[in-house]
Amino acid sequence: MLTQDHGVSGNPTVTPVSGERNGALPSRGVANDADSHGPLQTQTAGGVPESNVDVLIIGAGPAGLMAASWMAHCGIKTRIVDKRNSKIFTGQADGLQCRSLEIFDSLGFADRVWKEANHMIEVRKGRILNPGSDGLIRRSDRIPDTIVGLSRFQQVVLHQGRIERFFLDNIKKYSKDAIQVERGVLPASLKIDESKVDNDDGYPVRVELRHLSEEESTPKQQVNASKVQDGLYRSNLTQEDDEADLINKSKSRAGDSEIVHAKYVLGCDGARSWTRRELGFELEGDSTDHIWGVMDVVPITDFPDIRMRCAIHSAESGSLMVIPRENKLVRMYIQLKEVAPDASGRADRSKITPDLIFGAAKKIIQPYKLDYEYCDWWTAYQIGQRVGTDFHSHNRVFLAGDAVHTHSPKAGQGMNISMQDTFNLGWKVALVAKGIAKRSILSTYASERRQVAQELIEFDHRFSRLFSGRPAKDVMDAEGVSMEVFKAAFEKGNIFASGLSVDYAASNLVVKNGSNESLAKGLPVGMRFNSFKVLNQADGRPWHFQERLKADGRFRVVLFAGNILSPQQKERVNKFCSELNGPEGFLRKATPRGVPIDSVIEILTIHSSKRTETELLRDFPEVLHPFDEHSGWDYNKVFVDDESYHEGFGDAYRNYGVDKERGCVVAVRPDQYVGWIGELEEFSGLEKYFEGCLEL
Amino acid sequence: MLTQDHGVSGNPTVTPVSGERNGALPSRGVANDADSHGPLQTQTAGGVPESNVDVLIIGAGPAGLMAASWMAHCGIKTRIVDKRNSKIFTGQADGLQCRSLEIFDSLGFADRVWKEANHMIEVRKGRILNPGSDGLIRRSDRIPDTIVGLSRFQQVVLHQGRIERFFLDNIKKYSKDAIQVERGVLPASLKIDESKVDNDDGYPVRVELRHLSEEESTPKQQVNASKVQDGLYRSNLTQEDDEADLINKSKSRAGDSEIVHAKYVLGCDGARSWTRRELGFELEGDSTDHIWGVMDVVPITDFPDIRMRCAIHSAESGSLMVIPRENKLVRMYIQLKEVAPDASGRADRSKITPDLIFGAAKKIIQPYKLDYEYCDWWTAYQIGQRVGTDFHSHNRVFLAGDAVHTHSPKAGQGMNISMQDTFNLGWKVALVAKGIAKRSILSTYASERRQVAQELIEFDHRFSRLFSGRPAKDVMDAEGVSMEVFKAAFEKGNIFASGLSVDYAASNLVVKNGSNESLAKGLPVGMRFNSFKVLNQADGRPWHFQERLKADGRFRVVLFAGNILSPQQKERVNKFCSELNGPEGFLRKATPRGVPIDSVIEILTIHSSKRTETELLRDFPEVLHPFDEHSGWDYNKVFVDDESYHEGFGDAYRNYGVDKERGCVVAVRPDQYVGWIGELEEFSGLEKYFEGCLEL
Repeated sequence: MLTQDHGVSGNPTVTPVSGERNGALPSRGVANDADSHGPLQTQTAGGVPESNVDVLIIGAGPAGLMAASWMAHCGIKTRIVDKRNSKIFTGQADGLQCRSLEIFDSLGFADRVWKEANHMIEVRKGRILNPGSDGLIRRSDRIPDTIVGLSRFQQVVLHQGRIERFFLDNIKKYSKDAIQVERGVLPASLKIDESKVDNDDGYPVRVELRHLSEEESTPKQQVNASKVQDGLYRSNLTQEDDEADLINKSKSRAGDSEIVHAKYVLGCDGARSWTRRELGFELEGDSTDHIWGVMDVVPITDFPDIRMRCAIHSAESGSLMVIPRENKLVRMYIQLKEVAPDASGRADRSKITPDLIFGAAKKIIQPYKLDYEYCDWWTAYQIGQRVGTDFHSHNRVFLAGDAVHTHSPKAGQGMNISMQDTFNLGWKVALVAKGIAKRSILSTYASERRQVAQELIEFDHRFSRLFSGRPAKDVMDAEGVSMEVFKAAFEKGNIFASGLSVDYAASNLVVKNGSNESLAKGLPVGMRFNSFKVLNQADGRPWHFQERLKADGRFRVVLFAGNILSPQQKERVNKFCSELNGPEGFLRKATPRGVPIDSVIEILTIHSSKRTETELLRDFPEVLHPFDEHSGWDYNKVFVDDESYHEGFGDAYRNYGVDKERGCVVAVRPDQYVGWIGELEEFSGLEKYFEGCLEL
Repeated sequence: MLTQDHGVSGNPTVTPVSGERNGALPSRGVANDADSHGPLQTQTAGGVPESNVDVLIIGAGPAGLMAASWMAHCGIKTRIVDKRNSKIFTGQADGLQCRSLEIFDSLGFADRVWKEANHMIEVRKGRILNPGSDGLIRRSDRIPDTIVGLSRFQQVVLHQGRIERFFLDNIKKYSKDAIQVERGVLPASLKIDESKVDNDDGYPVRVELRHLSEEESTPKQQVNASKVQDGLYRSNLTQEDDEADLINKSKSRAGDSEIVHAKYVLGCDGARSWTRRELGFELEGDSTDHIWGVMDVVPITDFPDIRMRCAIHSAESGSLMVIPRENKLVRMYIQLKEVAPDASGRADRSKITPDLIFGAAKKIIQPYKLDYEYCDWWTAYQIGQRVGTDFHSHNRVFLAGDAVHTHSPKAGQGMNISMQDTFNLGWKVALVAKGIAKRSILSTYASERRQVAQELIEFDHRFSRLFSGRPAKDVMDAEGVSMEVFKAAFEKGNIFASGLSVDYAASNLVVKNGSNESLAKGLPVGMRFNSFKVLNQADGRPWHFQERLKADGRFRVVLFAGNILSPQQKERVNKFCSELNGPEGFLRKATPRGVPIDSVIEILTIHSSKRTETELLRDFPEVLHPFDEHSGWDYNKVFVDDESYHEGFGDAYRNYGVDKERGCVVAVRPDQYVGWIGELEEFSGLEKYFEGCLEL
């Protein structure tokens, strides 16, 4: 029996293990592990410092920060650079899908978003506004903005600067300051040594980085009378970006260059991605000649629905989309019919001013009055729907976010899909870098996310055309967009826009043919693990089950143990557990020696007997609640589908479509997607799943 | 139409007004306002610096920090000093009542507590353990730890150090760093100038402060082999405290003294309160000879209920209380039968070690095994139930928290009642200091909180005796405590322990005789405003109504507007609103010129018509959603008792016991207690309420 100092300056040798893991994943058989995160610098003959790093992330927007967050949670030696010297403070993307909130929750900061954001409750299909025959705005029926029952979260709106702040705090917390965004750092060249790309221990990607001066890395604002911060420098109406110029300038200064050798490089550097251009890849797809203005204002208006999400379709003046935001702000997407593209297909940005944009909005919303005193941010854009020709090079350099798909911002998808790209990619790179997962899983990034990008631009294409189109005058008006068509498209888009319709195709991470999907009809293989409330067996506390699927890089086996009090079922559970616990089973083989048995794959149990008639230590095999010599039994792994005192009944078995007597077994990826489903007897199928993706 | 720079280094002249107020309360007719918080220092002839401050808080534990938090939210020039040089990191009080969580939510940080804390779900009356005739532990029935439906929160456990951290962050956020805890500062003398105590502009309290050195202000730990941080220095088993010694030491150094002239002094300096002794007041009440040990450990045990709150009553070895905590910690309160008090009634603290305490626990819990490797903190105590003879001097110096009531920590009440003392006191002092409220409201602090302190020690007296007592052998055993008696006491205590049974007596802040309580049977005058979900009329978002009753120092009038679509009712509402809006009405009189009309009293509306059939601008008089020339209409003041899409139906009218057709009017204090209830026609009664407590 030891007692330990745990005071202010104490140095405890036995740390109390928190319910939440915040340690890094273990690693196996890989040189240069992440115990020290700082780059080990050496000097070349020419005096340029060189260093090795597991992962280099280019771009610290939401996609880059999501990737860095995974690396922090998994303990991967990582650097993240951005050419700009400050993060975003206003404007930019702001709509957040249900799925993004679920992801934030798995990282640990959904609560901060939920608290600050404006919640989108009503609209989407409803509250569509259309001119009646009298030319006045008619208001149609309403529906919820988020389909009821789809997720425990609803869509919200919060500006990108806050999201980036939460990411930075999260990265700091989990990496203990080892990963910090390096701002004012610009990549100057990238080379892949193809002889090393199949070598697990190699650093095949060589990147030259240049450190910019304060002045160089500050974005230029359009000079105009209003002095409102504008977003034109990031808008696609900027004809040329300034990388070449910046590189030339920084070259004139000595000692500001360095060489980084990386195992993996993640290009999260936006629609004009330097990484993409350096690899020689392109974006392909349609262009559009619709030009839109965007303004964040505190409106002064008698329009009754200003705090609802509204789509206003005027007869002749174009369309307006109203997105109420946090504080008293409202974002407006405003069609600019008066600004025509020039011969090159581009609009002249110098003509676009807040007055011009707001003037258009005032016209559209007539006969209601619309004015403002305070404008927080504004921009304009003219964007087509395009997807990258390639998502990676040798599965060593990856492109994510706007670097591989562009589309209009109106549907509020951009930031979500971009973050979800690297939420898909990050853990794969981390687990491969750690030697835990097979390198072959990396190719699922391109296949899975290209599919989503394709769906995104199709959605956006339909959505944008509907919005920019003239409303139909009557049913015989073939060129106009009828209210019915508009509403139907909205409705269909609603599920896509939640981010919950993603269904990844079969791969070594998603076993569809080898799964018995009828055992859990509410958990389709390839889709994210839906969430219902269950109770902790040991203390009765209700949890949304998804809260137990944290983004810590671990795979999970969810054992629906069924009616554990039935002797036959108990026998089945015992047999499954003894296989699981076998010295040659995948669980022990996947776990490096000397680390806890739940470090790579965590087993979570949900049973369906009454909580009060069961007992953790008596009724559940040890492998389901492992014993640790320092801290005793694990009380956070066995759950029950039973009624709570204060938060109702999740009815999880029924909602997951699992038989209450017999249960089933589900393999879950670190990003919460369902990978495999089978009977308790199908242990070999489960083993095969992990053999397919992990180094056993 | 203005557009404004709101960039990184921008200097906006029109600030976007957030939904949440974070500005200070306005003030009227009071010199030396809080625009500058820093003490304006002058030098006396002797060279000792002197300064004025509105409020001086002595002690930065939970009671002191709660008071400072009010001052931050209300914008009061405040200093807070503590003789210790660090805040609490482990141990100490940790149980949090539902009411404390409601209060934290009104300040803005309940979410942080809720996320980190261990939630107490089951026990209290249930899971009582008692030895059967066979000498083995029997386990009885279970009940929820928090009575279902009592509050939107349930009781949780989180150690005091985290709570203090949240307070400090909150104070920093709202006071913008103007209020900072000054540690290592000890009060050396206190004098009240009685000639100034009735003068609104005077600073009648003179306090000499001494600044300690680092060494002086570091608490001495008991030296023992284990090196675990212990709490003995705060335990009452420390025979003498060290103020006198510290003052003497610090006197030998020059230049470390200063004189503060304060309008109000709040003595939140614990059970051995220097402030109380300086005023010559005492604690009165019983003493006890029961000695208890307390340990926070990560237990290794086969006891099945270790993650439940348990009361274990052994036949001969004493009692043990199990409180599961955050992470894997469990707090144990352990009766120490082997340590006897000496002739003076005090136990010898040198005999008390972790081994002795834990050895007692092992005996009590037999036949189950109990062990640990990690101990976070431990202490021991021997406390009677006592209440202060006086709670204030001239309503200029106040005592709060342990300074006016001591009791055993087992019931988890201490920190709660202490914080609630200053939650009661803080806004009163702030509003009086601002010139908004009449000075006579200050006397309600002593009357209201003495009543609660009395209830607390009666509760604790029963509770402690039951716990320390030997269990009854059978029904004929008159001296033992029977299981039935024990359970009944537990049950009765449950409501008290939630903090929600507080019912303040009549005063100028609580008008019972002049209220028509039958109009809202779910809102008893004198009790806290209960919370049910309602929807925002403008955007449909569901809110727990209590979330709209923020701790910003404002009184509120809640207008239950009834069925606003009925012409008769609309007429009643219109009439009430036109009186409210009258140039000579209390609302305009209470509000200083030049500040928004909702700065002192906020009007909130809940109506009962269908949300979709009503419209904010069309159906509700302007005074219910005031217009601001900079930011338009206020969309956050009118709510509806209607079904939500995603979060069910709050059924607020039924739960508040208010007639759905006719509604009623409720006056609510800044601390969420109901002050007055009447019909819409009883405008004069409402006016009289505010005349009784505000400077109109």
